[in-house]
Amino acid sequence: MKSIIIASTSTLHGGSYLEYLLPTLQQHFKDCKTILFIPYARPSGISHEEYTQKVIAAFAKINIEVKGIHEFENPQSAIKNAEGIFTGGGNTFLLVTQLYKNDLMQILSETVKKGKPYLGTSAGSNICGLSMQTTNDMPIIYPPSFQTLGLISFNLNPHYLDPENQSTHMGETRETRIKEFHAFNAIPVLGLREGSWLEVKGEKITLKGDLKARLFLQNKTPEELETGSDLSALN
Amino acid sequence: MKSIIIASTSTLHGGSYLEYLLPTLQQHFKDCKTILFIPYARPSGISHEEYTQKVIAAFAKINIEVKGIHEFENPQSAIKNAEGIFTGGGNTFLLVTQLYKNDLMQILSETVKKGKPYLGTSAGSNICGLSMQTTNDMPIIYPPSFQTLGLISFNLNPHYLDPENQSTHMGETRETRIKEFHAFNAIPVLGLREGSWLEVKGEKITLKGDLKARLFLQNKTPEELETGSDLSALN
Repeated sequence: MKSIIIASTSTLHGGSYLEYLLPTLQQHFKDCKTILFIPYARPSGISHEEYTQKVIAAFAKINIEVKGIHEFENPQSAIKNAEGIFTGGGNTFLLVTQLYKNDLMQILSETVKKGKPYLGTSAGSNICGLSMQTTNDMPIIYPPSFQTLGLISFNLNPHYLDPENQSTHMGETRETRIKEFHAFNAIPVLGLREGSWLEVKGEKITLKGDLKARLFLQNKTPEELETGSDLSALN
Repeated sequence: MKSIIIASTSTLHGGSYLEYLLPTLQQHFKDCKTILFIPYARPSGISHEEYTQKVIAAFAKINIEVKGIHEFENPQSAIKNAEGIFTGGGNTFLLVTQLYKNDLMQILSETVKKGKPYLGTSAGSNICGLSMQTTNDMPIIYPPSFQTLGLISFNLNPHYLDPENQSTHMGETRETRIKEFHAFNAIPVLGLREGSWLEVKGEKITLKGDLKARLFLQNKTPEELETGSDLSALN
């Protein structure tokens, strides 16, 4: 049975790394002594080692050990043998490129679909959808494909931002960008605001956290979903 | 001799389409009765026809006619025979995909390098650099390559946005994204704020408009450049 947490962000303003999620993660990873961390998205270009140290410090608070996937000679076996898996945020183009380069996209998808507990934040959440095509990230590297894990049958826009009425900036709003995506793609897109996450248990998908999420369907007016909403019908 | 205008945006807040640039464009396209418009970036997913109508209306104010490239049976000849060329903004992934699909990237680059007057705004400016890898756009379609026209030897970030001190949003700032680009690429990046443009005359590149621009070099502290700055040394 699938057991997945898909979080908009790792960190809330004023909070420490993963802090707001720790009670949830304690429950989510309750059968794990150690989890495998995938640091490939490298936020701000930090190294795999630096990034993994940050995650080790956060998970130490709930007595879970962390190993970075870069420490293993065979990353495929590392995924197969892990008790639980966490993919952190950063740049989605880089994350997807590294997953393909190391031939891990398929095995990661299969492993999580079989029931290994998974946590994604930001870029690590983006890859849970059908494609990475609704990321906010800059294309700093050319991935072999935009297809991702397909753990759910829709796409995500993490760090979803509402348009600012006062803004004088003429760049596209997030909503306009998603509308452009829907000019060419029929895949539903869920805008997850910072502090929201999806809980996937088997085929059931529930919106968690304090905030509403914004659902974009092709050729429809976007819809606000209350926390606690059941999103299983999208699947 | 190259003759190129590379503008951050088509439209300033409170202004109409291309309004702030019209005096510049009147001079830039002074030898053109008609220009060729490339509408491939389709902002908000509008059609090529709709987009071209908008451009026709703007250029009518300076007595220049506009033909959309989609109206020609042979778009390669359309580029070769044009008196001047304008590529509008929208989604850079879509623009680059269409340019490759119609086998136009090389001929457009060669034609503009030979001296045909060119105007780019936003996505149409992004493609003037070496690659589209510093775009802000969403990857709504998978292009065959991220390589672009290379009319200048650096990359652009149009609609450049300064970090907001008051912001509680945890998504990456523009500066962080460019820093991530520089973790993997040595190409200089110029952040062009809305209202700024580059004027390229032969090998001379000058920053125009009222604002400063922000120059990012790999492993260096970003630098503010005054309007009027000569950027030729970057080339």
